[in-house]
Amino acid sequence: MTFLTFPESKLRSFTEQVFLKMGCPETDAQLAADVLLRSDLRGIDSHGVARLVGYVRLWEKKRINATPNVRVVHETATTAAVDGDAGLGLVVAPFAMKVAIEKAKTYGTGWVSVKNSNHFGIAGYHALLATEHDMIGISMTNASPLVAPTYANERLLGTNPMCYAFPAGKYPPVVVDMATSAAANGKLEIAQRAKQPIPEGWAQDKDGRPSTDPDQLKAGGSLLPLGGDKAHGSHKGYGLGATVDILSAVLSGANYGPWVPPFVAFLEPPADPVGEGIGHFFGAMRVDGFRPAADFKHHLDNWIETFRNARPVDPAQPVIIPGAPETEFEHERKLHGIPLIDAVVNDLNVLAEKLGVKKL
Amino acid sequence: MTFLTFPESKLRSFTEQVFLKMGCPETDAQLAADVLLRSDLRGIDSHGVARLVGYVRLWEKKRINATPNVRVVHETATTAAVDGDAGLGLVVAPFAMKVAIEKAKTYGTGWVSVKNSNHFGIAGYHALLATEHDMIGISMTNASPLVAPTYANERLLGTNPMCYAFPAGKYPPVVVDMATSAAANGKLEIAQRAKQPIPEGWAQDKDGRPSTDPDQLKAGGSLLPLGGDKAHGSHKGYGLGATVDILSAVLSGANYGPWVPPFVAFLEPPADPVGEGIGHFFGAMRVDGFRPAADFKHHLDNWIETFRNARPVDPAQPVIIPGAPETEFEHERKLHGIPLIDAVVNDLNVLAEKLGVKKL
Repeated sequence: MTFLTFPESKLRSFTEQVFLKMGCPETDAQLAADVLLRSDLRGIDSHGVARLVGYVRLWEKKRINATPNVRVVHETATTAAVDGDAGLGLVVAPFAMKVAIEKAKTYGTGWVSVKNSNHFGIAGYHALLATEHDMIGISMTNASPLVAPTYANERLLGTNPMCYAFPAGKYPPVVVDMATSAAANGKLEIAQRAKQPIPEGWAQDKDGRPSTDPDQLKAGGSLLPLGGDKAHGSHKGYGLGATVDILSAVLSGANYGPWVPPFVAFLEPPADPVGEGIGHFFGAMRVDGFRPAADFKHHLDNWIETFRNARPVDPAQPVIIPGAPETEFEHERKLHGIPLIDAVVNDLNVLAEKLGVKKL
Repeated sequence: MTFLTFPESKLRSFTEQVFLKMGCPETDAQLAADVLLRSDLRGIDSHGVARLVGYVRLWEKKRINATPNVRVVHETATTAAVDGDAGLGLVVAPFAMKVAIEKAKTYGTGWVSVKNSNHFGIAGYHALLATEHDMIGISMTNASPLVAPTYANERLLGTNPMCYAFPAGKYPPVVVDMATSAAANGKLEIAQRAKQPIPEGWAQDKDGRPSTDPDQLKAGGSLLPLGGDKAHGSHKGYGLGATVDILSAVLSGANYGPWVPPFVAFLEPPADPVGEGIGHFFGAMRVDGFRPAADFKHHLDNWIETFRNARPVDPAQPVIIPGAPETEFEHERKLHGIPLIDAVVNDLNVLAEKLGVKKL
């Protein structure tokens, strides 16, 4: 596997050009590129520009609307339902998060459930928008079914990530951003390419038996909820995935459970939808709605120092503050560029040629 | 192990008498008894009247105030900080949840962070108060440190439960109520009594090595976060436990991390507190703030049917809807009584004698 390293600015400009070629308005193209680039900067390579080809394919299939009329369709002082009009989740999600933030400015908190959207990139991007306003940010999304609930031999839930972001004082925000499955699909794909076994508890085969073979997912198997099996708490991972599904889709009018449309364009969405598109959920809470922001940040700094300095099992591996590795990646990659696997660069250049964009 | 079965009404009246003897006002005694009884009715025996002796011991140590001035100390339209005045969590938590519900009636949602409280019983009790108003209920609490974060050999987090409750139409509410550790402490205690090994991934010994010996926790070991180890996603369980700690305590001004005071009266609270008491967090969201309540309930019923009827791995073990087993227990025990282990009955009768309450 060879890596090619690009300056952020070059990848950003390339990505904007691709979205413009899809017909996105300029501000939308810039925003969507910003979401993907921030993922690459933060070291979450699976959700960055490597996905660009996938978004274009969905647009070619007319499953993504490049010029959506994203709008609030129902609201109270602190709640709203947003219709994404089949737009890029990368554009719909920041719109919805901003609605939540504006409500929080006036009323203390804001909460938005979204239907008729598509894949929104990393959950952390959206939650972090709130921390810039001294608010706690919450974001989650459902996703196409790959995960079997505890005791099931059927894929009914996506990897359904949830994210909580908290603004600190001296330190970067604490960001808990996690799939509710035992492992994200990207980790299985890495094991597939490397032809290496996966840990028990990540997946089961088509008969519902635990399996360490990463190819079983494609052969009719399922991912497993966080916990892996009942004895290790998989009913909790299942419960969290269910929570994300209900807040994102049952609450907004999006598709849920087995009806969530697939991200990959070669699979058709279910013919009997129970809602529109995929669903997200966002929240913003003003810290000073509970106590002065300076007090909160002072104590969160103390929390961070306490956990970071905890006695480690192995002195060579200190305890990690959620979000800290991503912040380090962001500093490093802003300075030294973003490494992409040659296969990803190749895919992007094929795309560039097709759309008439200057190659990387 | 012998069980003695009591009608709900008898245990309820006994529990109320005990709280009255502590000096609780009558409405508080009734409310606190209701929280404990609902736990026993719902089959969560570890959090019901079996804990009554523990609450009395904390009161004897003057760590629980039987006549607290529970009050809102800071608020916006949709947020509040509550000071529990060292009252019973069983009384403070429903007070705070009601503040959240009242705010939600007017503004769509309500959010309350609580300091200076004590153990609040089952998280589900409080979240379910919201579903009676067609609201989604959220409740969480931090707890005294037993859990080591990923890579740590130090107890810094409690089993920090989180609960989400959703009102359905034809069916009982969906209730996700879970500790964020791999296993609750009660499960370890059961294994200790039975002298049986615990699954790997629940605990580590005093040197941070994975252990299947349930006695290691008392010998300086730690519980592990949901996931068990890094390969199985323990950083996610750690992140969830951290989220509960920050929302419950850093946001309210309660103690967090290693400073959370212990539930057991024979251990002294830390001498250098960073806040007051333990912390909780509650939320209430009107379903019709997002879409008509009837639509939400119709689709949640469909969600429930879809998941309940999923193809099982083992036909003898169908998929479980979160909260459904507890509802079944509640029907059954309301009809046929609540079984208590003889050792618990004995403890309660010793307590009765000491306080001058009629024995069970």
